[in-house]
Amino acid sequence: MDLINFIDYSGTLVFAISGVLAGVDRKYDLFGAFMLGFVTAVGGGTLRDLLIGSTPVAWMQNQIYVYLIISAIPICYVLKNPIQKMKRSWFLFDTIGIGLFTILGLQKTLSFGLSPLIAIMMGVVSAVFGGVIRDVLSNQSPLIFRKEIYAFACLAGAVLFIISDHFFAENISMVISIISVIVIRLLAIKYKWSLPFNP
Amino acid sequence: MDLINFIDYSGTLVFAISGVLAGVDRKYDLFGAFMLGFVTAVGGGTLRDLLIGSTPVAWMQNQIYVYLIISAIPICYVLKNPIQKMKRSWFLFDTIGIGLFTILGLQKTLSFGLSPLIAIMMGVVSAVFGGVIRDVLSNQSPLIFRKEIYAFACLAGAVLFIISDHFFAENISMVISIISVIVIRLLAIKYKWSLPFNP
Amino acid sequence: MDLINFIDYSGTLVFAISGVLAGVDRKYDLFGAFMLGFVTAVGGGTLRDLLIGSTPVAWMQNQIYVYLIISAIPICYVLKNPIQKMKRSWFLFDTIGIGLFTILGLQKTLSFGLSPLIAIMMGVVSAVFGGVIRDVLSNQSPLIFRKEIYAFACLAGAVLFIISDHFFAENISMVISIISVIVIRLLAIKYKWSLPFNP
Repeated sequence: MDLINFIDYSGTLVFAISGVLAGVDRKYDLFGAFMLGFVTAVGGGTLRDLLIGSTPVAWMQNQIYVYLIISAIPICYVLKNPIQKMKRSWFLFDTIGIGLFTILGLQKTLSFGLSPLIAIMMGVVSAVFGGVIRDVLSNQSPLIFRKEIYAFACLAGAVLFIISDHFFAENISMVISIISVIVIRLLAIKYKWSLPFNP
Repeated sequence: MDLINFIDYSGTLVFAISGVLAGVDRKYDLFGAFMLGFVTAVGGGTLRDLLIGSTPVAWMQNQIYVYLIISAIPICYVLKNPIQKMKRSWFLFDTIGIGLFTILGLQKTLSFGLSPLIAIMMGVVSAVFGGVIRDVLSNQSPLIFRKEIYAFACLAGAVLFIISDHFFAENISMVISIISVIVIRLLAIKYKWSLPFNP
Repeated sequence: MDLINFIDYSGTLVFAISGVLAGVDRKYDLFGAFMLGFVTAVGGGTLRDLLIGSTPVAWMQNQIYVYLIISAIPICYVLKNPIQKMKRSWFLFDTIGIGLFTILGLQKTLSFGLSPLIAIMMGVVSAVFGGVIRDVLSNQSPLIFRKEIYAFACLAGAVLFIISDHFFAENISMVISIISVIVIRLLAIKYKWSLPFNP
């Protein structure tokens, strides 16, 4: 298992754990909490794969994703308090996760011959739509439509990848763009950046 | 038309009728009530078929499903009161329906070469996701995330099918697992079983 | 670019602008408003293409749709007041849009060998489901399930197209059915037609 797989699987687990904990907050039962963990972790990638169309949905073929999401249940049961205490490191995991999900989604889309513009969109969808589906399923207005430069950080990282890929090796472009996602999001939180649209 | 088709079609009609009546409860117009009947009846199977990917969506090819759902409208118009009186038998129909939908969804998934774990999940999705989409479309928090051993009964039946299929003929495994779904759900209602997840 | 493309693209832009303005109403940020414009404009056609299955999703292959939706953002920024003043002409654009989307969706479905019944349903889905997804994503009960003969006008136009296509050339049938959608909707508004379903 190389580094990319490792981060992909860690990201899936981190997203699954936040989804399960969101289900706990909403007083869901075991099935509801699992479902919320599931859609948070793989919802964005599933939508991306359905839209690409010529590829199977990733977790239907690779059961590691399913095992990781199932394992979020006992992890939340045993480690709920420590997880909720380590908010700061959690936030960092999550940000690394969306950075990597963005670039993996973008690269997968390009590999099916689709345009860079569509690949950028699919990168953002991979990273943020799990959270959107989680919010819709739990009958809440999607958070990211209102708050924070969350999706914008992914978008900026995706655009940077497309640009830097013309000049550097792919690995270097990946590192540049994932670091950009993280830095933009950290700066956005620190300086309370937002993108009001109020014509 | 053999027994499986008969139960499949009856299940579709039963689900469509509950969806239409849910639309009536929400003061939807004719179109809204039809739409709610439609997604309740075929929403789970549609999601399963989209996730499998290499199969067309069942009702796009077989119009009987569409005719059955359309017929739910006049049936609800004429028989609303009797239907609402026969709650107990209705509940039994519904439970037989989810039992069969679970096993049919599971078998269809296996027939495309996917793993038993994924097939179990697709069985549950086939049975319960129509109700989830109905609740999301009518802007309610999905019932099954909170209440009753509904999805769990499907899950248990699906797991039992995979196990008993190693030992018995397929027909016998089907009967065993559908009866398990029904018995688990009846016991869950009688003894108020629930699956709280409160780490 | 022939007339059909022209109306298709104009319809996409009109739908995108209404979606973006709905995002502004809901105090979404730039990303949220863009997303709402996006799903309003292409959500119905995307669902249709996923259900048909053997065709790629239109906007994944043809970037003009994406550019049109992106351009809705500066258009809303500059022209918000004029757009909101010209309610009447706006309503007419929107009605022409759903008329055309219905017939284009129907024809596309027929061209994949699916039945007229399914093609009629996919026509209606193409025209109205963008608005349904917009409402679901912004946590509102879908408007069209309750109000106005919106979906019914599309349905009537689609049925008329299938009938008149037996008697007239395709272009004439298109004109007949698009005009029917417009006339039915105008009459429905004027005379407050509705389709209550209250068994």
